[in-house]
Amino acid sequence: MNWLLPEYIADALPAEAARIERLRRTLLDVFRVHGYEFVIPPLLEYLESLLTGSGQDLKLRTFKLVDQLSGRTLGVRADMTPQVARIDAHLLNRNGVVRLCYCDSVLHTLPASLHGTREPIQLGAELYGYAGLEADREIIRLLATVLETAGVPATRIDLSHFGIFTALVEAAGLTDEQAEEVFSLLQGKDVPGLAAVAKGLPHDLGAALLALPNLYGGREVLAQAAKVLPGLPAIKAALADLQTLADGLPGLPLSFDLADLRGYHYHNGVVFAVYTAGVPSAVALGGRYDGAGQAFGRARPATGFSLDLRELARYVPVQAQAGAILAPYSGDDASLAAALASLRQAGETVIELLPGETAVEGVAFDRRIDRVNDSWIIEPISKD
Amino acid sequence: MNWLLPEYIADALPAEAARIERLRRTLLDVFRVHGYEFVIPPLLEYLESLLTGSGQDLKLRTFKLVDQLSGRTLGVRADMTPQVARIDAHLLNRNGVVRLCYCDSVLHTLPASLHGTREPIQLGAELYGYAGLEADREIIRLLATVLETAGVPATRIDLSHFGIFTALVEAAGLTDEQAEEVFSLLQGKDVPGLAAVAKGLPHDLGAALLALPNLYGGREVLAQAAKVLPGLPAIKAALADLQTLADGLPGLPLSFDLADLRGYHYHNGVVFAVYTAGVPSAVALGGRYDGAGQAFGRARPATGFSLDLRELARYVPVQAQAGAILAPYSGDDASLAAALASLRQAGETVIELLPGETAVEGVAFDRRIDRVNDSWIIEPISKD
Repeated sequence: MNWLLPEYIADALPAEAARIERLRRTLLDVFRVHGYEFVIPPLLEYLESLLTGSGQDLKLRTFKLVDQLSGRTLGVRADMTPQVARIDAHLLNRNGVVRLCYCDSVLHTLPASLHGTREPIQLGAELYGYAGLEADREIIRLLATVLETAGVPATRIDLSHFGIFTALVEAAGLTDEQAEEVFSLLQGKDVPGLAAVAKGLPHDLGAALLALPNLYGGREVLAQAAKVLPGLPAIKAALADLQTLADGLPGLPLSFDLADLRGYHYHNGVVFAVYTAGVPSAVALGGRYDGAGQAFGRARPATGFSLDLRELARYVPVQAQAGAILAPYSGDDASLAAALASLRQAGETVIELLPGETAVEGVAFDRRIDRVNDSWIIEPISKD
Repeated sequence: MNWLLPEYIADALPAEAARIERLRRTLLDVFRVHGYEFVIPPLLEYLESLLTGSGQDLKLRTFKLVDQLSGRTLGVRADMTPQVARIDAHLLNRNGVVRLCYCDSVLHTLPASLHGTREPIQLGAELYGYAGLEADREIIRLLATVLETAGVPATRIDLSHFGIFTALVEAAGLTDEQAEEVFSLLQGKDVPGLAAVAKGLPHDLGAALLALPNLYGGREVLAQAAKVLPGLPAIKAALADLQTLADGLPGLPLSFDLADLRGYHYHNGVVFAVYTAGVPSAVALGGRYDGAGQAFGRARPATGFSLDLRELARYVPVQAQAGAILAPYSGDDASLAAALASLRQAGETVIELLPGETAVEGVAFDRRIDRVNDSWIIEPISKD
């Protein structure tokens, strides 16, 4: 059974691959006109550089290899964001704002879900060097434009803020390990688990932890959060940030989900998850990860988003494509060869039959080119 | 030194990445108008399926991993051609001619040369299901069109034929191991090494082996080969094939190099290496590998070519790109936001300054948008 592929690994055959390629171009063009410069980080890096500053989840998801040249351990990237932060911090070494984008395969040792893939095509944009909320606003607007252009407009943009979680963890004096556990419980909205943890905490902090999973919905959530969460300065600042950001994004379907902090654990400010019609899980995730690049010698404010192009392409409306033109074998007929070349120059798909061939399976032809008298003319193929 | 990358592994920064992306689109469009359907095979496969029918060189070049889900050994592809043959044989399962193309990164444990990379971007086209030379002709013409369109026209297309080598090996009764050794000596044009092997062979076969490295040049090589090589039927057929093919490719810079049989050892008919001005090594390799897909249950005639897009992009003439437009922060100014959106819709790159920003490093602006009275106008930025 040599043709079997590993689980959660698949080919994209012509129809799907064409859809992915069209979407790739459309979205990279959206990035380009917004001034986001395209970069291509490598598939392989030294493991410690790939995982710098990342959480345990990314470590477990990364395939490891041994480098025959250096004897050191390499990783196949499971996430491109840290690579792009490295490029900003070290290679470009520009002051001020830098806007970068990327689109390439990443590999995961395990799929994110039962319907997931181990080879997402990660497409994303990152904005470095600007700490103000205007950068978060730009990134969220860009993501909304990207989804709109793709034909799958955002129906819900859930905002959250890492500052709330961090403030509670610090006030409670949790160890990193305990914080990691609480983080997992929050992501799973595991209320019984959170209640067990809350018992061991001062009353207001425990109550805050238990309140978080219910703090989701429209703008009223921010007022509600101000009431039920402790009045720590970092929590007030986080709620004010969310309010300011929401005010700066009129017309977008914003909502709040203060317990939702997904991502690869390097986030630390405003984060967001974006949904589209008919798709239960988020199609794009993003947020702020200030301090990115510190391990590469230059801490920089950072915010951005990414999505799986392979997945998004499944939800994009199918566009009718022009049919192909069927041509006879040109052999040494220079006039036919020239006619075919000029059709192709004009963007038409023209398939030349090889001698003895009468049909081409799997290709949708709607026209044929035939010799009439001394010239080549194109005729519609009648559908039987 | 977390920012150091492994040897022979590199980022493509904005200028290079943009060049690669432009070339990628141009060349995939050439494939599309010729009816070659795009496919995206996975980065990972079970090792035995990835290496089916390949030679020792590909085995050594392939990174191996352990699959946590199955416990089996996986390989990261070092060559996409066998994957595409698998798609043709097993997944599409179409009769008749199938034309496929692809473009994606592959990984090599070791670089092919001191100036090589361990992560080429392999771009190629494959034609399945047609045994006649017209398929070889189509593939070679397609490759010539690809290079012409890229702005790096072929200056030399060296043709060769595996049938000559195979006929000599069979006539001499060499073992697989001996054949592999002779193959290496031929690829290195190692005349002393060949002379040593020739001593142990019947006179005419030894003389033929020693003659091969000198059988390169124009059409006269075919006549010369007919004289100095033994008159075995397979050799006669190979030389006739080369003659027929050359007759079918007028206008291309054809030459012959009968000892040159590069590739991954799965080739078995006409093979070719293509050169462009100012580049000492071949920029594209290809040829026939009939029987492809046999391991996947369906032997199919096959021919195709591939090249490294990352390398080719270095030789492509640099095109002047339109400059970007610098815009003030739009904030809640709907008229400015609308003006920027329509410029971007028209394909212009527009960068909005964030509050406090006065310049954007690294981006070439040639215009700015400014408010004059009540409307937004675009003015050239004067160069000081």
